[in-house]
Amino acid sequence: MKALVYHGPGQSSWEDVPDPGIQDPADAIIRIGTTTICGTDLHILGGDVPDVRPGTVLGHEAVGEVVETGRDVRSVQPGDRVLVSCISACGRCRYCKEGVYGQCLGGGGWILGHLIDGTQAEYVRVPFADLSVHPLPGAVSAVDAVLLSDIFPTSYEVGVIKGNVRPGDTVVVVGAGPIGLAAIATARLLSPGRIIVLDPAAARLEAAKRLGADVIGVPGEQPEALVGDLTGGLGADVVIEAVGRPEAFELCTRLVRPGGHVANIGVHGAPATLHLEELWIKNLTITTGLVDTYSTPRLLTMLASGRLPASELVTHTFPLSKVSEAYEVFSRPAETAALKVVLEGEPVETREVVRTQ
Amino acid sequence: MKALVYHGPGQSSWEDVPDPGIQDPADAIIRIGTTTICGTDLHILGGDVPDVRPGTVLGHEAVGEVVETGRDVRSVQPGDRVLVSCISACGRCRYCKEGVYGQCLGGGGWILGHLIDGTQAEYVRVPFADLSVHPLPGAVSAVDAVLLSDIFPTSYEVGVIKGNVRPGDTVVVVGAGPIGLAAIATARLLSPGRIIVLDPAAARLEAAKRLGADVIGVPGEQPEALVGDLTGGLGADVVIEAVGRPEAFELCTRLVRPGGHVANIGVHGAPATLHLEELWIKNLTITTGLVDTYSTPRLLTMLASGRLPASELVTHTFPLSKVSEAYEVFSRPAETAALKVVLEGEPVETREVVRTQ
Amino acid sequence: MKALVYHGPGQSSWEDVPDPGIQDPADAIIRIGTTTICGTDLHILGGDVPDVRPGTVLGHEAVGEVVETGRDVRSVQPGDRVLVSCISACGRCRYCKEGVYGQCLGGGGWILGHLIDGTQAEYVRVPFADLSVHPLPGAVSAVDAVLLSDIFPTSYEVGVIKGNVRPGDTVVVVGAGPIGLAAIATARLLSPGRIIVLDPAAARLEAAKRLGADVIGVPGEQPEALVGDLTGGLGADVVIEAVGRPEAFELCTRLVRPGGHVANIGVHGAPATLHLEELWIKNLTITTGLVDTYSTPRLLTMLASGRLPASELVTHTFPLSKVSEAYEVFSRPAETAALKVVLEGEPVETREVVRTQ
Amino acid sequence: MKALVYHGPGQSSWEDVPDPGIQDPADAIIRIGTTTICGTDLHILGGDVPDVRPGTVLGHEAVGEVVETGRDVRSVQPGDRVLVSCISACGRCRYCKEGVYGQCLGGGGWILGHLIDGTQAEYVRVPFADLSVHPLPGAVSAVDAVLLSDIFPTSYEVGVIKGNVRPGDTVVVVGAGPIGLAAIATARLLSPGRIIVLDPAAARLEAAKRLGADVIGVPGEQPEALVGDLTGGLGADVVIEAVGRPEAFELCTRLVRPGGHVANIGVHGAPATLHLEELWIKNLTITTGLVDTYSTPRLLTMLASGRLPASELVTHTFPLSKVSEAYEVFSRPAETAALKVVLEGEPVETREVVRTQ
Repeated sequence: MKALVYHGPGQSSWEDVPDPGIQDPADAIIRIGTTTICGTDLHILGGDVPDVRPGTVLGHEAVGEVVETGRDVRSVQPGDRVLVSCISACGRCRYCKEGVYGQCLGGGGWILGHLIDGTQAEYVRVPFADLSVHPLPGAVSAVDAVLLSDIFPTSYEVGVIKGNVRPGDTVVVVGAGPIGLAAIATARLLSPGRIIVLDPAAARLEAAKRLGADVIGVPGEQPEALVGDLTGGLGADVVIEAVGRPEAFELCTRLVRPGGHVANIGVHGAPATLHLEELWIKNLTITTGLVDTYSTPRLLTMLASGRLPASELVTHTFPLSKVSEAYEVFSRPAETAALKVVLEGEPVETREVVRTQ
Repeated sequence: MKALVYHGPGQSSWEDVPDPGIQDPADAIIRIGTTTICGTDLHILGGDVPDVRPGTVLGHEAVGEVVETGRDVRSVQPGDRVLVSCISACGRCRYCKEGVYGQCLGGGGWILGHLIDGTQAEYVRVPFADLSVHPLPGAVSAVDAVLLSDIFPTSYEVGVIKGNVRPGDTVVVVGAGPIGLAAIATARLLSPGRIIVLDPAAARLEAAKRLGADVIGVPGEQPEALVGDLTGGLGADVVIEAVGRPEAFELCTRLVRPGGHVANIGVHGAPATLHLEELWIKNLTITTGLVDTYSTPRLLTMLASGRLPASELVTHTFPLSKVSEAYEVFSRPAETAALKVVLEGEPVETREVVRTQ
Repeated sequence: MKALVYHGPGQSSWEDVPDPGIQDPADAIIRIGTTTICGTDLHILGGDVPDVRPGTVLGHEAVGEVVETGRDVRSVQPGDRVLVSCISACGRCRYCKEGVYGQCLGGGGWILGHLIDGTQAEYVRVPFADLSVHPLPGAVSAVDAVLLSDIFPTSYEVGVIKGNVRPGDTVVVVGAGPIGLAAIATARLLSPGRIIVLDPAAARLEAAKRLGADVIGVPGEQPEALVGDLTGGLGADVVIEAVGRPEAFELCTRLVRPGGHVANIGVHGAPATLHLEELWIKNLTITTGLVDTYSTPRLLTMLASGRLPASELVTHTFPLSKVSEAYEVFSRPAETAALKVVLEGEPVETREVVRTQ
Repeated sequence: MKALVYHGPGQSSWEDVPDPGIQDPADAIIRIGTTTICGTDLHILGGDVPDVRPGTVLGHEAVGEVVETGRDVRSVQPGDRVLVSCISACGRCRYCKEGVYGQCLGGGGWILGHLIDGTQAEYVRVPFADLSVHPLPGAVSAVDAVLLSDIFPTSYEVGVIKGNVRPGDTVVVVGAGPIGLAAIATARLLSPGRIIVLDPAAARLEAAKRLGADVIGVPGEQPEALVGDLTGGLGADVVIEAVGRPEAFELCTRLVRPGGHVANIGVHGAPATLHLEELWIKNLTITTGLVDTYSTPRLLTMLASGRLPASELVTHTFPLSKVSEAYEVFSRPAETAALKVVLEGEPVETREVVRTQ
């Protein structure tokens, strides 16, 4: 089959690799119908994630069709249309028993496109398939659903749920990239009184407004004053960090009210300063987290009933074979205005032939 | 009356000051029977709390008798034996309505011995008395109860409750000063599986064992290895910071397991480094907070039924008039082995005469 | 002034009574601008609430203007436009400290139009005004706001919050009278996947659809089958009882899934049968409750930002002096299609003159 | 092998049956070292549980040794000493993913000694072994551990956790049979201020006191007055029903304070009356439930550290072959003072020989 293979920092290619096969009785093989690129993939290509060995197929998001299952797989069977979760779950360890799949101790967690071959390929092997893929309701389109592999459960679980967003709250989202926009969309499920979004890019602020932000601001322009004015000087109930840089996190801790929450979604590469000399007295709750994807079935229900504007984040679509071009577009958002870039596999008929050769 | 008056950094004296009187209809005047010294008082004397103006009477903990009440006070009356809370609560603002009295916006919060005259005196005026003093059950001794003015609700609310201690948990308490010891005692109310305490002082570790710590360790001696060994390499469920220094806080973030809680009780004077490049993925919850004292009635119930070993923290007792000497002892714990130092007012008969002159 | 006075079962009249005055320093006198009639008022007139003594002025919902305050009132002053809560709160008792104002032990709770004179009058005395009236944002209309005296916080707190409605849930509301309709509107704040409403009256089902119900059903027509079909045979996540009759409650316990919630809002006059022989094993949570109105400030914020369709429940408006006629209309909903009936006081100019005579 | 086989109401015998074998790749075969009898077993023998077909081996509690595992079992292997949970969990269904194993939709739940052969035998087949047996710490004795198959997680999860017992609470336990006593022991983990137990049997009340009850009462002697006196007339914070009869449940609803919890553990065979005409206004939470056993690993940790007095409930021990005699004793507690009756398998050496024949 063809797949996007990582060959070390800055290097990848769409090339022939062996088809994946069942290695463990809990595996399933999925033919990729739709996949997408995550900001984390850019970090990998940038060399920031040394756990990824050269030769690994990238990608951890997909919608596709089950083509083969190991003998222990009970929840899906060949022919099923499924969502592949970015998190695999052994289902037996302490964390999996608590639904904290992202911290799986039994060989799961975030492994696709990281420790094992991923989804930017014609086929992918998914370990622990019973807990790691989700059958798709017919009413759900693949382009919508693929945003539930990672970005929507991440923003909902790590931003909105950990941030404890409640009806009537003032919520600030720092950063309006794809994950920040998904945080806005999922925060709205809890009917906050006001969502304020901060980002330097005007195009992203426009997208934020479409997805439900009530107030937009540019970080450089005294966001403390903006939030203070809107909250009687108190600060926001919930502040969501969706950037992944120390200064963004530190801004969050200045924007939150006493008793409020700072929920970090951003992937960080450097330490931040925590001003405990001011914050020790403020009754803050600060949370971090990798997505667990426990919410995926619930989000799929919401999507099926039209409650989740997932694909509004999609700005570009490419055929899967043009994945390198798609990375180009996705990596230059300032110029391309890219948010999520979706890759579509070839029609099934063609691929069937290819596979049986 | 006599009171301990702050005269600027490093200076205080036990001297004659005017008796306090009712200034607002919600005030009560309390004759001090028992008071104590808090680590915060040492910070004030050290000049670290510039909000405290010279001329202020120090102290925010007391047990005493109501001698006069403003016309709006409905919950207590002259003659009642009461606990004075370190937090005063207006009862009308947004925070007070939620029980978050420490963040009171209506003129309360931590004001005694801080923004207004405090309890290290023969009498104290307590604003918003209805919500700021607690009638004492007869069975409760003053020496026990005075530890519920601040240290026990602080350790319970800010350490144990915010830290979400649950039966069976592994809990680490970093720092075995009075507040850390109270955290051990109140954590035990939730039956953790194991309490590990870290402190450089052998005497404090001994006290920690008496109060219920299961394992003791010295911070310098690789506490990461100690906690890792006891938790199968995972880390602790809950880590409580009871020191107030950046390195102690940073240690906490290394000792906690993925999905665990770091609850900061320590009063900090400098920023800490938050290693988000490692912690963003670990599903941590970090909390800070000033005590709200919403738990005080519940803790008084526990004390009355013998469930709370409050006065085990008391190492020294002085007459109130020897308060300067008590500060001396309290400020040199390495030499004096002081934990909590209690000050006892003179017998009531004598004081009655004094007051009526 | 004029007021609607209860004279025993079936008897009331709009008649002259003495103006209310300050009786306690915490009282406020409010000139009624807008009031409304509650289903409970009909129960009182029906003789079902013997605590209400003849001679009592009815009504517990109002928007108006503060005209006088007792000396202890600090949060509002004459001239303020306020919402009168159906619950008065002493602010000092155990329940009030926890925000459970409806269970106030200090002389508050539901007292207006019940134990003391109420709001269907030109003026009302509100005890414990600091915690029992809410200043109104200018942007909020009186007709919207008066629905936040009782019905909206009741449906939100007792139905939606106690029922633990979460995004994606299947919610069943049994009964589409005013309180059931408000439960639909406030449940939507949490973005359930599907709201099913059951009621025998077609007009009410139409209103339910306008307010956000997704599926409507008639109780007689096998609601168990309807809910089962929509939930894969499991039952609903949350079932809200908004009728107040044993058979409605018992239906709720048949419609809920294992692990689900039954939240009772209905006011009951007779016992129900709880089929523990079937339910003991089903992990149910059943809740009851009187409103506490802790959510009123938050709901006012939502109203001000256009998030709450409160006045969509209003079907009729009368001048306050026509209150008896309004009761007529409200008590025959099958014929009049009445939901909430609002009463408007006379313009302020006229009343000012009246009062100063 | 030998096993206790149910032959219809009132009939059972210890007889030869075929050894169980692996039927599904997720099965494990356990050699029974220790088992016990549950009140539910008496209900089955009484004919109250028609799902149990004649020919079924009874029993759902055991400690033993793994002797064979299906090819999919990953968490345990032959030779491991394990606790058999009364609940089997498929690990893949909606409920299992949420830890609600008792409601498993995938073929698990309470099946041992109910829908399939159980543990009162020399060997038992346990389906879904990965999630249905728990490796035992060496320090834990079998007699202690076997009480964690059912009774301790049941009382902790269904009584204490669902009842929301908190430090300082007044807790009433209605019924001091084995499950009520376990509720007392596990409630103490949360340090309630006072545990009141009601039971007509003096011997059971004595046991209750040993396990930590503070106050004992006889239901006939006005328990409402007893609880009212101790709580200032308010009622208890938490009332746990551990009887399973309508009048006991109804008593619980009279003993609870406004805002309190009634947690039903009892297995009921008849409906109860819920006095909604009094309770609708009281902010009650009533919960029911089958155990899920999510807490078993945590309870095993507590047991290993000496925090759980499990085997104090054991009054009689018999060899497994005397199981019929053990039932005799267990079924007449008034005469035998039996609480839990434990059955011990023969020493391993002997059994090894038997099995290899």
